Amino acid sequence: MSETFVGIDVGGTNIKIGLFDAELKLLSKTSVTTDADMGPEIVIDKMAQTVKDIVAEAGLSLGDIVAIGIGTPGPARYSEGIIIRSTNMPKFKNVPICKMLNDRLGAPVVFDNDANVACWGEFAVGAGKGVENMVFFTLGTGIGGGIVNDGELVHGCDENGAELGHTIIYPNGRTCNCGQKGCAEAYASADSTARRAAEAIEAGAESSLKKVLDEKGKITSKDVYEHLAAGDGLAKEITDGTAEVLALTCVNMLHCTEPARIVFAGGMIAAGDLLLGRIRHFFNKHVWTIKKEDKIEICFATLGEDAGIIGAGALARHKYGQK
Amino acid sequence: MSETFVGIDVGGTNIKIGLFDAELKLLSKTSVTTDADMGPEIVIDKMAQTVKDIVAEAGLSLGDIVAIGIGTPGPARYSEGIIIRSTNMPKFKNVPICKMLNDRLGAPVVFDNDANVACWGEFAVGAGKGVENMVFFTLGTGIGGGIVNDGELVHGCDENGAELGHTIIYPNGRTCNCGQKGCAEAYASADSTARRAAEAIEAGAESSLKKVLDEKGKITSKDVYEHLAAGDGLAKEITDGTAEVLALTCVNMLHCTEPARIVFAGGMIAAGDLLLGRIRHFFNKHVWTIKKEDKIEICFATLGEDAGIIGAGALARHKYGQK
Repeated sequence: MSETFVGIDVGGTNIKIGLFDAELKLLSKTSVTTDADMGPEIVIDKMAQTVKDIVAEAGLSLGDIVAIGIGTPGPARYSEGIIIRSTNMPKFKNVPICKMLNDRLGAPVVFDNDANVACWGEFAVGAGKGVENMVFFTLGTGIGGGIVNDGELVHGCDENGAELGHTIIYPNGRTCNCGQKGCAEAYASADSTARRAAEAIEAGAESSLKKVLDEKGKITSKDVYEHLAAGDGLAKEITDGTAEVLALTCVNMLHCTEPARIVFAGGMIAAGDLLLGRIRHFFNKHVWTIKKEDKIEICFATLGEDAGIIGAGALARHKYGQK
Repeated sequence: MSETFVGIDVGGTNIKIGLFDAELKLLSKTSVTTDADMGPEIVIDKMAQTVKDIVAEAGLSLGDIVAIGIGTPGPARYSEGIIIRSTNMPKFKNVPICKMLNDRLGAPVVFDNDANVACWGEFAVGAGKGVENMVFFTLGTGIGGGIVNDGELVHGCDENGAELGHTIIYPNGRTCNCGQKGCAEAYASADSTARRAAEAIEAGAESSLKKVLDEKGKITSKDVYEHLAAGDGLAKEITDGTAEVLALTCVNMLHCTEPARIVFAGGMIAAGDLLLGRIRHFFNKHVWTIKKEDKIEICFATLGEDAGIIGAGALARHKYGQK
């Protein structure tokens, strides 16, 4: 029997589970509601049962599973396999999730945070394939980050590294949710992009987005990019602010771990070249001029919503697979 | 016979050579003028002869040398062992320095840039001892950088990583020698610190440093810190600018590779707590508030001028030593 791996992506609403062969081909996948209010025992029982079901449906047995990968939001002590706490799952406190899954399923469990897991998925089989050094950003409520250096994820001394959304781009600038001022996340996450547009309108800026704000009571980053496409001036200013912050973060990472490729993920990449083209434009504006031969590729993620399960499966294979 | 290692630190003026035992104890050291104008063949002949001499004087033979480490300024293709070019040694173009040394001395040669080598020295036996994740800055004409992640130097995809002086702290700020605007180096190197003071005086700022500038025609960073110690207001403003930029770079590295320790080196650390205390002050001002339990130690290098030979010897031991 060929090696089989399981990838689990734990979100506040749903738990996604995928089954992979040794080439990381997705054999099957499923999704169940998280029901985090039921507490860790019940949630992890259900998670394990769902793995058993999907394995059986594939005509396999638990003995075929070489390893299981799982990704959750932090904070956690990943190398110890423990979720410390979770905003979306308030009953999860100091939960030894790896041990609990291992007790139920037998296979060894590899655990990392959701951004690192998605980063690893893109690195292994997505937009980062073929390079050994990559940086990853996911643009959502916040900005998640991941760094692959010489083919390994960078975790840092306390497993809180690669929090790239909290590198400071504008000292003493906008206050971030983390308490710092001027973080990349405070400008360039999907939420911050929308919020900056709403704030500008509330401060009196003229924009076709005003109607959206008046009617819906809020603006999303999707709205902002749609109005950019339609020629709105404020949308241009706001989205250029987003792209410039992301570009500056790319310049800084070039001088830090020097990735061959920088990959952006998250819902906001649906904006396509309206986002990517401007990140590249501002990158070329800010990057040094003495070494123009520097090659760094800035691109979008390719795995979409399966990045979490693929990355978790890929991490399991990386640690326990035969190749 | 116990293992013996050679460390070579190539500067534009002098070549320093050290001989180390397996515990990286410095057995002996020497220094010869570089005489870079004589061209690579003659310089490397002299380098090899000096190694032979110091080995013989120690009562050893070339056969006792397990490996040789060497550090030079970039740009170079370190893993291939080739100096591409050198500002201080204009006749050194595409010089296969590792092969040339190996031909003359027999032992394998490990090659890296001078900042990485000094970083590795501090990591192995200096201020970074005992941690696995470290970041290093050397404050001189420019700002050199080094990153150790999980016990290994970070080189990046094109061996130009860890150029931390060129991370951008103030977008669209002061123009750096590299062509970018707002680099840490443009504010906080020893040279930039002195230059900012001179510019302020030339623009009319009052300062006790004006007399120095008038009499000597220039100001050094040493002057600035001396006048700070004597209570000069401009010196306070300039040096706080330096410390704040360095602190912001520390915050960003915390969120990037998350070092347990950040080590500053270079002549400017002679300023002592006038520099270190203020870096820590601004670090605490800018770092996030949600995770105050974060521990990161910011400290000064301890190896002084021998960091280059020690680091080179330590790199040789790291790659070729038995432990």
